[in-house]
Amino acid sequence: MNDRVREILGWYGSDNPGTLANLARLMNHGRLGGTGRFVILPVDQGFEHGPARSFAPNPPGYDPRYHFELALAAGCNAYAAPLGFLEAGAAEFAGEIPLILKLNNSDVLTGGKDPCPALTGSVDDALRLGASAIGFTIYPGSAARNEMYREIRDLAREAKAKGLAVVVWSYPRGSGLSKEGETAIDVVAYAAQIACQLGAHIVKVKPPTAHIELDAARKVYEKERVPIATLAERVRHVVQSAFDGRRIVIFSGGEAKDTAAIFDEVRAIRDGGGFGSIIGRNSFQRPRGEALDFLRQVMDIYAGKAK
Amino acid sequence: MNDRVREILGWYGSDNPGTLANLARLMNHGRLGGTGRFVILPVDQGFEHGPARSFAPNPPGYDPRYHFELALAAGCNAYAAPLGFLEAGAAEFAGEIPLILKLNNSDVLTGGKDPCPALTGSVDDALRLGASAIGFTIYPGSAARNEMYREIRDLAREAKAKGLAVVVWSYPRGSGLSKEGETAIDVVAYAAQIACQLGAHIVKVKPPTAHIELDAARKVYEKERVPIATLAERVRHVVQSAFDGRRIVIFSGGEAKDTAAIFDEVRAIRDGGGFGSIIGRNSFQRPRGEALDFLRQVMDIYAGKAK
Amino acid sequence: MNDRVREILGWYGSDNPGTLANLARLMNHGRLGGTGRFVILPVDQGFEHGPARSFAPNPPGYDPRYHFELALAAGCNAYAAPLGFLEAGAAEFAGEIPLILKLNNSDVLTGGKDPCPALTGSVDDALRLGASAIGFTIYPGSAARNEMYREIRDLAREAKAKGLAVVVWSYPRGSGLSKEGETAIDVVAYAAQIACQLGAHIVKVKPPTAHIELDAARKVYEKERVPIATLAERVRHVVQSAFDGRRIVIFSGGEAKDTAAIFDEVRAIRDGGGFGSIIGRNSFQRPRGEALDFLRQVMDIYAGKAK
Amino acid sequence: MNDRVREILGWYGSDNPGTLANLARLMNHGRLGGTGRFVILPVDQGFEHGPARSFAPNPPGYDPRYHFELALAAGCNAYAAPLGFLEAGAAEFAGEIPLILKLNNSDVLTGGKDPCPALTGSVDDALRLGASAIGFTIYPGSAARNEMYREIRDLAREAKAKGLAVVVWSYPRGSGLSKEGETAIDVVAYAAQIACQLGAHIVKVKPPTAHIELDAARKVYEKERVPIATLAERVRHVVQSAFDGRRIVIFSGGEAKDTAAIFDEVRAIRDGGGFGSIIGRNSFQRPRGEALDFLRQVMDIYAGKAK
Amino acid sequence: MNDRVREILGWYGSDNPGTLANLARLMNHGRLGGTGRFVILPVDQGFEHGPARSFAPNPPGYDPRYHFELALAAGCNAYAAPLGFLEAGAAEFAGEIPLILKLNNSDVLTGGKDPCPALTGSVDDALRLGASAIGFTIYPGSAARNEMYREIRDLAREAKAKGLAVVVWSYPRGSGLSKEGETAIDVVAYAAQIACQLGAHIVKVKPPTAHIELDAARKVYEKERVPIATLAERVRHVVQSAFDGRRIVIFSGGEAKDTAAIFDEVRAIRDGGGFGSIIGRNSFQRPRGEALDFLRQVMDIYAGKAK
Repeated sequence: MNDRVREILGWYGSDNPGTLANLARLMNHGRLGGTGRFVILPVDQGFEHGPARSFAPNPPGYDPRYHFELALAAGCNAYAAPLGFLEAGAAEFAGEIPLILKLNNSDVLTGGKDPCPALTGSVDDALRLGASAIGFTIYPGSAARNEMYREIRDLAREAKAKGLAVVVWSYPRGSGLSKEGETAIDVVAYAAQIACQLGAHIVKVKPPTAHIELDAARKVYEKERVPIATLAERVRHVVQSAFDGRRIVIFSGGEAKDTAAIFDEVRAIRDGGGFGSIIGRNSFQRPRGEALDFLRQVMDIYAGKAK
Repeated sequence: MNDRVREILGWYGSDNPGTLANLARLMNHGRLGGTGRFVILPVDQGFEHGPARSFAPNPPGYDPRYHFELALAAGCNAYAAPLGFLEAGAAEFAGEIPLILKLNNSDVLTGGKDPCPALTGSVDDALRLGASAIGFTIYPGSAARNEMYREIRDLAREAKAKGLAVVVWSYPRGSGLSKEGETAIDVVAYAAQIACQLGAHIVKVKPPTAHIELDAARKVYEKERVPIATLAERVRHVVQSAFDGRRIVIFSGGEAKDTAAIFDEVRAIRDGGGFGSIIGRNSFQRPRGEALDFLRQVMDIYAGKAK
Repeated sequence: MNDRVREILGWYGSDNPGTLANLARLMNHGRLGGTGRFVILPVDQGFEHGPARSFAPNPPGYDPRYHFELALAAGCNAYAAPLGFLEAGAAEFAGEIPLILKLNNSDVLTGGKDPCPALTGSVDDALRLGASAIGFTIYPGSAARNEMYREIRDLAREAKAKGLAVVVWSYPRGSGLSKEGETAIDVVAYAAQIACQLGAHIVKVKPPTAHIELDAARKVYEKERVPIATLAERVRHVVQSAFDGRRIVIFSGGEAKDTAAIFDEVRAIRDGGGFGSIIGRNSFQRPRGEALDFLRQVMDIYAGKAK
Repeated sequence: MNDRVREILGWYGSDNPGTLANLARLMNHGRLGGTGRFVILPVDQGFEHGPARSFAPNPPGYDPRYHFELALAAGCNAYAAPLGFLEAGAAEFAGEIPLILKLNNSDVLTGGKDPCPALTGSVDDALRLGASAIGFTIYPGSAARNEMYREIRDLAREAKAKGLAVVVWSYPRGSGLSKEGETAIDVVAYAAQIACQLGAHIVKVKPPTAHIELDAARKVYEKERVPIATLAERVRHVVQSAFDGRRIVIFSGGEAKDTAAIFDEVRAIRDGGGFGSIIGRNSFQRPRGEALDFLRQVMDIYAGKAK
Repeated sequence: MNDRVREILGWYGSDNPGTLANLARLMNHGRLGGTGRFVILPVDQGFEHGPARSFAPNPPGYDPRYHFELALAAGCNAYAAPLGFLEAGAAEFAGEIPLILKLNNSDVLTGGKDPCPALTGSVDDALRLGASAIGFTIYPGSAARNEMYREIRDLAREAKAKGLAVVVWSYPRGSGLSKEGETAIDVVAYAAQIACQLGAHIVKVKPPTAHIELDAARKVYEKERVPIATLAERVRHVVQSAFDGRRIVIFSGGEAKDTAAIFDEVRAIRDGGGFGSIIGRNSFQRPRGEALDFLRQVMDIYAGKAK
């Protein structure tokens, strides 16, 4: 086993060998295998945003098998999706790529300022589908946060006992926060900390802006002169906020945008010590050839093969 | 086994042979057996709308045995009903026609803009009654959707472990949607996607209109020029939204209406690649002879024997 | 066993030997071992206030292992933290210092006048991590108090059956109280009583002010001339309110403040018969050397080695 | 995925994707990865024969970590051992090599003509240790066979539901058989059939001799002129008896013996269509360098790189 | 934490922090705390041999509190006893000394050549009594061994999940062995191996003689020239047989005998790398003063303070 992989596993001393093996599987698969860096393909947008918004730009993506194949061909570390999408390809691609079963999901047919995803899968589903990890979304800032925190408490305990890893999507959102505050540096760092305290092995957050949302936090950032001017600095602060870098923190790609802008973002994540990216729409909404080329370049940046 | 049936079963690679066998039973029974097309008789209106509204137009329908016999005589693929109706005829018609036990139901004695059906049956009831599948209604758009999604998560997992198929009625409705939005093309396609992501083998939706409900969706439909002008095109889009046609999608007949209009609708479903119809009131509220004739014509359209 | 420890254990006659052993462990560990006095290091501020506000003043504190080591080096009786922080060091520090797993936590990303922490850990987590006690926060005065009281009812019963001790943070707060009332002597004494009535073995409250919040209480304090002029008198009254001193009551340090002021507070707690302090930010936000020196002096005051 | 691996997975259509993924893991790991051939290192002799008989010939083998490392360095497909041996290395070697947890074991301290191994591990142990499969020994021919068959019935059902593969050691033995009969061709073929009928994914038997034990069987072998003169022919017959080659059948190496004889045996297994070898004592009782060289040659024979 | 203690904990990588903490407690308590050596007081003879045979020689031993106090005063690492004896003192001595609850026991009122102890306590009893470990006796060589092995499989799994350590008394006995064979070097080494394979953290065996019981083993001992002439050599071989010294092996004192002989035995255990002694009758059947003196000398030998 690679020294870096072994070092990272060493951070999870409370976990059983089954969970460690699944963490190792996630770290050892794909083009970034053994580097301790991650590029994960997540496809839950069909549920979260609706099928046309997700797949009409690149219609082969309507087919659930497309994403297994894309993640595999691109050399991603893992493929993450809700129950139905995994059920529709897990047998055909059995053992080919580590899977993460998303256990809760939101749709946009019901609004409200305080979102709370629905439970849509279980730990036993993850076992029968051969997944290496469960995925779960929390919305710190939502008035419904207690329900989400209690659910992940129970699901994480069960997953760990059964030898699975736990990936938490931590997306600040809700009546407690301004729109700008959802990606504010203090809030994103806080969201990373909360996910770690809830027992996540891997945390996914959004790239933070330099905005500071909370007054009580601003005083400290200013007094202690926490460096947050560049994205790399902010990533570094988020990683520090995740148990001083002793939990794996990866960053979402967010909305589809200019390719050059994404590469800049990836460079900043890499330079700030982030562990990688989880890139959905920017991957599967491009034509397959473009997507493979794009993901290869992202991986090259993480691997240090490209600037 | 018919090639088309075999092809369809091939889409369900995560399921055990018991579930596959029940799916095959649904596909092989009746006048459309082996075609991969479906006409199902559902009779839950006694619960959902009350007895007189349901059965007074054709009083023999008060007798639960009437519907078993009607579905059988008409050559439907299956008969779907709540617990009580199945209990009242399952022994007498044992083995004669595949049954679908509806596990939740609403009544109209209590209103509210955010509907949530009550659990009225269990997976074990389905087994003891010899049903091939469970049926379950979700209302995407209702503020109570999380409760329904969590329920079908648990029921579907249990049903699949016990070798049953899962049929989801996905009817957008609730405070998140306008009345027109309940059948909007973007919403119906989304509802089909959600049901598939929740693990449904068979999804039932309403025939969609050309209306688009959600602004974020409209931009995509326009930009990507998704064809939705005709009902056949819209059906095709809904089927595509159900895992690129790799899940069975059938369409409800909706309110009783003009026979010619129904046949037009059925032709559009057929031409758009829909898998069939689930026709309740338009069947059992007609006199038996008329109903048989009507259903025969619907089946002929699906079978390609009629235009 | 020390006589004082034995005397204190004698107050808990309804508890099984497992719980008594864990209470004894808490009392026998560290520099105050055997005195019946406590200095506990709690670090839940990462969750409760956010990482930068908690750890930027002394950045080594971002690393979860820092706090285990600090509590151990300082000779604290125990270290208390949420799930994630304990998971990140419990194996490395196995058996070195008694642990208290905090089972609920709040964050400040969602406001509201009536706080209710989320459940973030379980009694079984406490067992697998080797903790001696569970910790739980209640907010008397919150409209959500019944939910918290019911939760601790269930968790305490389970913890006691499994041989663990129960530590309750009792912090009056919510729409029922004025800001000043949160630390009013009548309210703090009441909060201590409620925690004891809920079955706590150890109660943590804030040092009370001389303010009286409730009119009905004020009449009695005046009529019965309850002495509450000095902090030592108020501590004595709080301890009396905790079953006449037959439950362990410790006091929080509150916000970081002037060192001399803290020592004065500690002297008053000692002189009033308080059992000790639980000091978070005033410990881990100082540089390690200063923190060790500071904690040593606090312990010396409790041990009677310093004035 | 390799075509051969996909072909083999196609034989297990009743299994869920979790089990298929674990079967794929076993087939894709090591020097024979992707060939559909297997060389597995089993080390249960410490339990089955005692430590000195097992490890004194090569004392580093007393250390449980030795065998993980040996299996890994040699490029075996998997390492199989009882609970204690896996517990002693599963964290250190997490994710490095597929593991098979043997769930029952015999010792030689109690005799009797009708052996029945003790249950020594559980399916949940396999999950927490990160194993890909359970292993289980049956002794067809023992008067206690019903107990073993019932145990594997329950354990296999649980393992399959939880996404694990099932490996059955099928060793005819007991009062129903002569000593020579234990490896008779009719009995070994029968033992393979029984293991398959009990639901094994992978069956391990001993290389059969040309002896025929049962009179009723002899008549058929003679009448139908089943070719059993050479070991390759007998292997072919055993593989045929395992569902016409649609179950994986591997062969044990048996007692330590002459290296050239083993290579001859391996060639015969290969030529007869056997899927591979499970080689314990002949591997770990040699000095490490010799063992690696030996295993490399065995794998070369299976891979067709050596004659 | 002492380096030696940390090293030993490092052998148990599959265990959770709760179990590691309890192992650490056993290693850190008493006069041998931190040395990695053990002297444990076991008192199950009241159940196993009857009260008069056990306690008449030193009548204060009829009182269950006597043994807690003796173990504590002598500085033993732990005190081990059946349910009743622990219930009778666990509250009074709460937290003073690590406890081991024996979960099965035999009496001598029913004979038979194939002993099988009765279950007399549970893991939950261990938790409520504050024990650090469960104790369990197996009799390899008994025809009833399968029942014992299956019981410890289930109890050990439960104990480990709940953060307790597992101590196995492995005493070869039964129709499979001669009387002399019960302490034969090959049999004792085998018994140690079996206990480790069953998942024991700590194994207790009897000091082995130079007799070899099993013919198949004798050949290996002779061929490999395993040194077994002296007790120290035999202890070394037993420790090696316990996963190459990576499991804790302690030795029973056996029947009451000459003090000098015991000291010689202890020296041999120490010199052979044994981890310590578990001494019952030789301790509690002596007058208290003598017993303390005796145990002090035993500990001095282990600590290297005496020859």
